Amino acid sequence: MSRIVTLTTDFGGADGYVGAMKGRILTLAPETALVDISHEIAAQDIVQGAWCLRRAARQFPPGTVHLAVVDPGVGSERRGIVLETEHYLLIGPDNGVLAWVAEADGTRAAYVIDPARGPWRRDATFEGLSLFAPVAGYLAAGGAPDAVGPRIPDWTRLALNGPTACQNCIEGEVILHDRFGNAITNITQASLTAFTGRPLARIEAGGREALACARYADLEGLAGALGALWNSDGHLELFTYRGSAREAARLARGAPVRAFPATP
Amino acid sequence: MSRIVTLTTDFGGADGYVGAMKGRILTLAPETALVDISHEIAAQDIVQGAWCLRRAARQFPPGTVHLAVVDPGVGSERRGIVLETEHYLLIGPDNGVLAWVAEADGTRAAYVIDPARGPWRRDATFEGLSLFAPVAGYLAAGGAPDAVGPRIPDWTRLALNGPTACQNCIEGEVILHDRFGNAITNITQASLTAFTGRPLARIEAGGREALACARYADLEGLAGALGALWNSDGHLELFTYRGSAREAARLARGAPVRAFPATP
Amino acid sequence: MSRIVTLTTDFGGADGYVGAMKGRILTLAPETALVDISHEIAAQDIVQGAWCLRRAARQFPPGTVHLAVVDPGVGSERRGIVLETEHYLLIGPDNGVLAWVAEADGTRAAYVIDPARGPWRRDATFEGLSLFAPVAGYLAAGGAPDAVGPRIPDWTRLALNGPTACQNCIEGEVILHDRFGNAITNITQASLTAFTGRPLARIEAGGREALACARYADLEGLAGALGALWNSDGHLELFTYRGSAREAARLARGAPVRAFPATP
Repeated sequence: MSRIVTLTTDFGGADGYVGAMKGRILTLAPETALVDISHEIAAQDIVQGAWCLRRAARQFPPGTVHLAVVDPGVGSERRGIVLETEHYLLIGPDNGVLAWVAEADGTRAAYVIDPARGPWRRDATFEGLSLFAPVAGYLAAGGAPDAVGPRIPDWTRLALNGPTACQNCIEGEVILHDRFGNAITNITQASLTAFTGRPLARIEAGGREALACARYADLEGLAGALGALWNSDGHLELFTYRGSAREAARLARGAPVRAFPATP
Repeated sequence: MSRIVTLTTDFGGADGYVGAMKGRILTLAPETALVDISHEIAAQDIVQGAWCLRRAARQFPPGTVHLAVVDPGVGSERRGIVLETEHYLLIGPDNGVLAWVAEADGTRAAYVIDPARGPWRRDATFEGLSLFAPVAGYLAAGGAPDAVGPRIPDWTRLALNGPTACQNCIEGEVILHDRFGNAITNITQASLTAFTGRPLARIEAGGREALACARYADLEGLAGALGALWNSDGHLELFTYRGSAREAARLARGAPVRAFPATP
Repeated sequence: MSRIVTLTTDFGGADGYVGAMKGRILTLAPETALVDISHEIAAQDIVQGAWCLRRAARQFPPGTVHLAVVDPGVGSERRGIVLETEHYLLIGPDNGVLAWVAEADGTRAAYVIDPARGPWRRDATFEGLSLFAPVAGYLAAGGAPDAVGPRIPDWTRLALNGPTACQNCIEGEVILHDRFGNAITNITQASLTAFTGRPLARIEAGGREALACARYADLEGLAGALGALWNSDGHLELFTYRGSAREAARLARGAPVRAFPATP
């Protein structure tokens, strides 16, 4: 059987670390289709890794194995885990990087990887190769998740600050940026609806007004203007047309953003 | 049947956008072989995307599906199109990014993607996922191009300034740079031949003389010297040996370049 | 038969050069599984390419074809070669980039690529496409290595300065950095054992003391402290926890590193 294995890491593309992991996976499961989600997660940025995985993983067919290694605790006592969700198998360190995709897909069972149970072992510096890649190869070859180690009742979650109510508005923050410099916030369309039931009217971000838009091109011709729209993930996103909101409006991670609904 | 689908975007590797698109394609066409051409096209740089696609696409076997998303107009009224060329199926926004490979391969038919005809839809921010990836999956699974939407008589072309005649020379410009800092011009071997029928003798670029070379190594030992050669695409390319012509000679995009043929 | 072909180059991801090579390979060998090892080798850095390839290549299943193009001499008289090792076929320019993986795996035979013997040819600027990719496609399709050209008795090796004995210590140097800014040295666990038979006790790097560690997390809470450990390749590696040793300790390539064994 040919399985898909996706890879999400902060290893970058230059050093061959990811190539080594792929070799190990293909040695154990030669027919695997390997798909990169990202290897440019900022070094040791668990939040960005979890977000990126949540965005991409859900687009894959049922049965896909998703492997994520963003792992500042490599070599320490933190565990390696396998999560069995409604549609997928997730593999990674137990530090929250798997949490959001697991919550989004619904978790059925969790297992801690036991180095005594298969061709995987602990390592001081590169468990992507020694521990996680062999587990991915084992599962891709049809191995059973409950054979990698004992079932565990719980695993590490990752808190995402929710937006909070302010006066006539909800207040959230920038949680990360994409490559275009768009600033993605923790304010979702659902949270605004739950708060007021009314559509978005006005936005403040980093001390500036942002225009409520339906698409990027709404700001065509308005150089430097800051816009806000609901993006394809359902989150409020701040942008400038053909520019970087991150730079233009100095919207760092954590910058406060307020969304005001239309008056009734 | 297993098809190849190539991807060319300006999405970068960090954010998982491309991974999401691949998941969608594999959901519709599980046996697809996915090949990245580039995801590092400069943000919204249609010219670079069109050039990169033209360079790489023609090396693929007949039947390959080439998907390109460099799309400053996402969410606006610009159309999504499918072009059927002599050897390939091309998918992307109708903004010129497909134009050069289509011209190079010869276009048989063009179709506008109709959101009512399949599992693809318009989106405000990410039509790579909602519109183009599903069409790629559909075509990779053997779907007929004329089923994605109505046939159209024409599509957006992309003008490339041709070189012009100057006194005893032809004058062109730098059109883009590659990763090594080599500066690629719009002066082709064919255009010089058409102009004079004589070989290249002398080059001026950015106010400097460049040495006519046959290979990069002709400048070995000449630190900082500027050279020019016909590259593997048949274009005049400016370089420095083990250095960056872009930086050393300040050859920005649009910088004038003059090629003088040998005197008869 | 479906073969794996890996690719290691300094072409970067932006320009479509690698995509073109993959198209050529798939045209000759449609069932090939293509795996990227790295395309972010620093421009023309043969040492980094050789190291990256050695790290990753050995993880792949027997029969894998490893293609490496880091090639400052493109277009010159330097040869293209194929090395048949215990488990792999290696393809690349004869400039040392294949040397370390060949030595690590054990070489059985070497061949020089003869442009008259197949659909590959010399080119002034892009032999990745014209020469090496077609050879990779030919071998991936089951072609015999001895058909690409005549057998040769020797090929270009790549010297790695070994560590040398100093007073009560061994002295080596930083040979390269990884993406995290970790500085990898030429001091191996085996070299220290050969020198003294005693474990590591103390390290000096770039004029600073480094702490002997077993894992990165040993420096948790010690902001800016410099650590040293044996990495998964068996080399002494200098690091700072969640930071860059390269920047924090100014450990450039070639910086001297001294390792002192425990006193008996």
